[in-house]
Amino acid sequence: MLIAQTPLPPYYAVIFTSIRTEVDQGYADMADKMVQMAAEQPGFLGVESARDELGITVSYWDSLENIRNWKQVAEHRIAQEKGRSDWYSAYKTRICRVERDYSFEAE
Amino acid sequence: MLIAQTPLPPYYAVIFTSIRTEVDQGYADMADKMVQMAAEQPGFLGVESARDELGITVSYWDSLENIRNWKQVAEHRIAQEKGRSDWYSAYKTRICRVERDYSFEAE
Repeated sequence: MLIAQTPLPPYYAVIFTSIRTEVDQGYADMADKMVQMAAEQPGFLGVESARDELGITVSYWDSLENIRNWKQVAEHRIAQEKGRSDWYSAYKTRICRVERDYSFEAE
Repeated sequence: MLIAQTPLPPYYAVIFTSIRTEVDQGYADMADKMVQMAAEQPGFLGVESARDELGITVSYWDSLENIRNWKQVAEHRIAQEKGRSDWYSAYKTRICRVERDYSFEAE
């Protein structure tokens, strides 16, 4: 997992912060599959993810419309449903417009 | 670390995604101190953080002005400098306006 190479702002970010249950069955496969599928959607710009106590996944998109479209994709809806019934005890999703960004890379 | 209890949108988010070097000296103390100090700044609304391969820290704020003010706080500037010289091999900071959010909590 690397830092996403996003274009110049403005673009959009979906911050998904979650706390897992102890149910592991099917989780890793589904999470991998959702990242793969997201990457194939129109308007996808990149994704970053980290987990320890909390999980934070940020996906980047070119428009609010393409974020909405991805939310409605059938397999993604099934994953969301399984998330609520099995894998997450709590989550919060925030839809954001990225206004500015800046980077650092050591030489 | 819990999911931040943020107010109704709009509000602002700073997504800080980083890759660490192997230098650990002083890092954990400074990271803790910066979270404590951020929480005392005007306009701070919450913070979420996770690290495995990547680190992602998202802080939430009431305005762009208060984000700028926090960036300029002297101790924070020193921490940013140490981050570039010692602790991070790369990072990206994205300043965002949170447009919508929604939550789930299991019963």
